Amino acid sequence: MSYTSLKNKIEFILVEPSHPGNIGASARAIKNMGFQNLCLVKPKDFPNDDAFYRAKGAKDILDKAKIYKDLSSALEDSTLIFGTSARTRTIPWPTKHSSELSSTLKKGLKSSNAKISFVFGREISGLSNEELQMCDYHIKIPTDEEFSSINLSHAVQIISYVIKMEMQSDELVSELTNESTTFQDNEYLIDHFDKVMQTIDFYDQENPKQVKTRIRRLIKRLQPDKLETGILRGFLAKIEQVLNKKN
Amino acid sequence: MSYTSLKNKIEFILVEPSHPGNIGASARAIKNMGFQNLCLVKPKDFPNDDAFYRAKGAKDILDKAKIYKDLSSALEDSTLIFGTSARTRTIPWPTKHSSELSSTLKKGLKSSNAKISFVFGREISGLSNEELQMCDYHIKIPTDEEFSSINLSHAVQIISYVIKMEMQSDELVSELTNESTTFQDNEYLIDHFDKVMQTIDFYDQENPKQVKTRIRRLIKRLQPDKLETGILRGFLAKIEQVLNKKN
Repeated sequence: MSYTSLKNKIEFILVEPSHPGNIGASARAIKNMGFQNLCLVKPKDFPNDDAFYRAKGAKDILDKAKIYKDLSSALEDSTLIFGTSARTRTIPWPTKHSSELSSTLKKGLKSSNAKISFVFGREISGLSNEELQMCDYHIKIPTDEEFSSINLSHAVQIISYVIKMEMQSDELVSELTNESTTFQDNEYLIDHFDKVMQTIDFYDQENPKQVKTRIRRLIKRLQPDKLETGILRGFLAKIEQVLNKKN
Repeated sequence: MSYTSLKNKIEFILVEPSHPGNIGASARAIKNMGFQNLCLVKPKDFPNDDAFYRAKGAKDILDKAKIYKDLSSALEDSTLIFGTSARTRTIPWPTKHSSELSSTLKKGLKSSNAKISFVFGREISGLSNEELQMCDYHIKIPTDEEFSSINLSHAVQIISYVIKMEMQSDELVSELTNESTTFQDNEYLIDHFDKVMQTIDFYDQENPKQVKTRIRRLIKRLQPDKLETGILRGFLAKIEQVLNKKN
């Protein structure tokens, strides 16, 4: 199954959001992470210009957002439900840290009719106990204990980021792609440094052995690519050339 | 060292933010994750009521935010600098995915004078090439390829969340290591290379701008410690001295 169709199995549900700006910012946040499905349960003011303004390039997400009268209607076809919660509740629920979703999420996605819902509560009061108990798991975003009230769209951003990371965690990230140097290239470069340092009597000033060792360690740590090695060796050669000319 | 004092080694820098609301939302975002230090480089409109309104319970972060005239002033004492970037640049820079910060961050925090800066660009145009080249690493938030424009405060929220996760992921950092070089130390070293390269007419051979940028990138990646910086600068000074004597 393609990555895109897997992502379509995920949806974000905002329960009674008060500020239209937060709805728009949430639409943008989920689209930034490649998701498409936004559901609203009894939004206080929607559609609204401020929501569309804050959505920027994610107006399509708002256009097709589904609106429900209560959370249980929104969850009807859901196969796996995560509810976000900042507070610890009286009745402890299976709770996942936002960094621990991986296995549960991946297992959930394997289902042929998977529809995985992430539920976010009201700006001020969050989700009710009844709503939290409709969820299979609670997710806790580990905010600072002394200041845990996170903006709604920011919570949506963190969770959508985490889900995206989990879903692509096997993909490799390419770093620098230039050709690598060999062991031999590095040895030549270290020797070249050594030679120039001798020529200019650099070693007179300090413990010679230590300086050479440090240059070696530095080059090893640097792992210059071919082009960088070329620049450094060209630089050293040019110094030698200028010195020769002056002699 | 306590977790709180480690967190004080981290700072968030917003470069020329246009919307005061984003400044306030960013203040709230970092405080949610337990961080305190916000710096602003040439904010378009600050202090501003909208910033304080959006900050909610994080008004103290705005009250003590430091304001600078340019990025290099803000970075003066920084020992490790991460710049956020959505685009891929012509000269690839050492780049970390937001999920790959762990080891670099932990190593950086061990320095006795650690000051780790996370730099965020303008809402529309991000960071300039010059600003990006002041950074030791670029961080890429892996947004959806077709919709990568992420709201400024949401980017701050993701990165501050990721750092918090990394910092609490295992045992706290205990031993402090050697003193790190600051941004300013590195700038002096880069300038010294540049000066010697000019003196010996090294730039005649190649595209001068590109060579200097590559030297800059190389130093940034190397992150020499104080002793190594001393050796390299001593080496360059010695070359100058020998050349002068010959004239």
